[in-house]
Amino acid sequence: MKIDGRPFRTIWVNPNDPRIIQIIDQRFLPHKLVIEDLRTVDEMARAIKEMHLRGAPLVGVAAAFGIYLAAIHAPEGDTFDSYVMEAAGKLISTRPTAVNLKWGVEKQLTALGVSSDLSFPRKRESRDLDPRLRGGDSKGAKIQIALETAKRLADEDVEMCKSIGRHGLKLLAEIQKKKNGRRVNILTHCNAGWLACIDWGTATSAIYQAFDQGMDVRVWVDETRPRNQGAGLTAWEFGKHGVPHTVIVDNAAGHIMQKGEVDIVIVGTDRTTAAGDVANKIGTYTKALAARDNGIPFYAAVPSSSIDWNIQNGKDIPIEERDQDEVRYVQGLSDGTVKKVLVVPEHSKAANYAFDVTPRRLVTGLITERGIAQASEEGLLNLFPENRETI
Amino acid sequence: MKIDGRPFRTIWVNPNDPRIIQIIDQRFLPHKLVIEDLRTVDEMARAIKEMHLRGAPLVGVAAAFGIYLAAIHAPEGDTFDSYVMEAAGKLISTRPTAVNLKWGVEKQLTALGVSSDLSFPRKRESRDLDPRLRGGDSKGAKIQIALETAKRLADEDVEMCKSIGRHGLKLLAEIQKKKNGRRVNILTHCNAGWLACIDWGTATSAIYQAFDQGMDVRVWVDETRPRNQGAGLTAWEFGKHGVPHTVIVDNAAGHIMQKGEVDIVIVGTDRTTAAGDVANKIGTYTKALAARDNGIPFYAAVPSSSIDWNIQNGKDIPIEERDQDEVRYVQGLSDGTVKKVLVVPEHSKAANYAFDVTPRRLVTGLITERGIAQASEEGLLNLFPENRETI
Repeated sequence: MKIDGRPFRTIWVNPNDPRIIQIIDQRFLPHKLVIEDLRTVDEMARAIKEMHLRGAPLVGVAAAFGIYLAAIHAPEGDTFDSYVMEAAGKLISTRPTAVNLKWGVEKQLTALGVSSDLSFPRKRESRDLDPRLRGGDSKGAKIQIALETAKRLADEDVEMCKSIGRHGLKLLAEIQKKKNGRRVNILTHCNAGWLACIDWGTATSAIYQAFDQGMDVRVWVDETRPRNQGAGLTAWEFGKHGVPHTVIVDNAAGHIMQKGEVDIVIVGTDRTTAAGDVANKIGTYTKALAARDNGIPFYAAVPSSSIDWNIQNGKDIPIEERDQDEVRYVQGLSDGTVKKVLVVPEHSKAANYAFDVTPRRLVTGLITERGIAQASEEGLLNLFPENRETI
Repeated sequence: MKIDGRPFRTIWVNPNDPRIIQIIDQRFLPHKLVIEDLRTVDEMARAIKEMHLRGAPLVGVAAAFGIYLAAIHAPEGDTFDSYVMEAAGKLISTRPTAVNLKWGVEKQLTALGVSSDLSFPRKRESRDLDPRLRGGDSKGAKIQIALETAKRLADEDVEMCKSIGRHGLKLLAEIQKKKNGRRVNILTHCNAGWLACIDWGTATSAIYQAFDQGMDVRVWVDETRPRNQGAGLTAWEFGKHGVPHTVIVDNAAGHIMQKGEVDIVIVGTDRTTAAGDVANKIGTYTKALAARDNGIPFYAAVPSSSIDWNIQNGKDIPIEERDQDEVRYVQGLSDGTVKKVLVVPEHSKAANYAFDVTPRRLVTGLITERGIAQASEEGLLNLFPENRETI
């Protein structure tokens, strides 16, 4: 999306020097826009580990670009593969729970014909390989393939987000019609925006598309304690693209719904069960309860990659407990520098659950890249019949 | 309650010098315990205006102590009354929406025989006056009466909070019995604690009484953005008295209820309608929704002074909108000093509603100083029949 009028993605190849990957270093948002140059796989691994970038789709693509950087610096000849495999291990271990890391890395290993089982290198048959790799071991060809693969994964993510947005846009248009063209008020929680992806975002994609088409939209942005991704990232995204938005504390969502100032809720998801229960950032559940109590439609934007076909009941999704200091301290800007301030008594403990589960009975629908599904097993299987046997 | 083992109130007369009123300067909590000496009505007015102390019951009693300080410094003779009336005006204008200020001041004016209508001074008939004032105009007697009145108002508030706690304690004891003596988990929102009153608090009173009796209790303390009165004041109170507690972000309340870790919710109230709708700190409504969705009893601690017998429907309670910077900035401790940090993008706006209304259908009961009422007009009138004609 745009930053002050200029189109941006979250990660890209330096146009002047393709050996450098550039990212927005999100640690300084919303206070400073810092572009970081990454030249080696170690720099990329650190960027992922220390959360210069975050968001499942973005992290997966970043890992793929990490393998590309490794390929550039890998030695020619027989040790190329073991060098790349070591890089793969580094990238995957940065954030052990992020499945997308493994996905991005494996796509690259497959494309490069590097076996992930190093005890049997080059097991893969040559007919699976890129034709450029069949003849021999040109390092140049490998670098080119790694670059193309990473760029393709990025582009595919953009297309998926766009599709989710196209389907969500229909919902916004219907509301606008019902309101005789008056402003459509959307509430969102956390950051399921383009900063979590490559572009467009998931929950935000329909909003950007509506805004770009000239629809009168306004977004209520939940602050999203403890990590404040709403106040810090989502509000920044919308502000830079020009989308009208208002930040509220998480406590205020129910009240503005009671006042009739919310027409629809759209959130993201970290994992959705095969039966339609939605695990998302902590606090999503109470927003869904408030939406239901006030007759407001509640949607989750669900890339099919986030559907866990092996789990039916949301209660079976493990909920990550994170460091209590994320609750005890708040980060912000003071005197021009980013600081953390303690907001609880020195000796008070805090609990920090990262996610909660919104049961399907509170979910009006799931916006996927193939269309809008009812939050039920049948609803999801209608759109993704190829998973019927997995369940 | 106790601070590190030593009993405290929020306001008291300096035992070594009764011309000095001492308060806990709450602006520095939870990071520093600062005791402030107040010697003049101007110092008291500033303490109220700049929120060195806050909370409706406390503010009312503080205003009464302010009149006492005025009486000390008032001239003898004919100008005593006009001096005191000027002081009354100063105190009442510190926080225009706080009805308790007026209440505390008027109790003093009545006791001192000072007419609030200065164009007709001394209209009050002498039989209404304290016997000490009948004979003449001893300034010493007036000071003594003002001191006794302020102390009586403080003691009455303590008794009222104790009574609310005694009734609430029965609820906790029932839960403990049902759980075969296992720990009782209470969730509270904002600060309806002793720091908002003179001692005990309203929502917290039952918890302190249970803890003092040796009941195994644990309190989930909602952070309560935007002003963080839960994280800053309630957690501090409980910590200093020794009550086990855990701070959570406001987003987490629903999740811990889903996990079965909350047995009862007790909150305070800023205004309760004659029909039982509860206006309280923003975010109370979504906590009540989550309690209902998980079958958890939800109670408000309601001093009868907070019941508005003239309003039936909670929608008729005006909701204060406060400065957006309370949302945009967070206060906390950094490098030993209390700082405010910006948590949103520089140009993003925020909405800041201070309260919301929890409809009576979500309220299990109202804990008053006369007992527990159903959240309905009949429930309240059963306990307060003297208001039947007001409605």
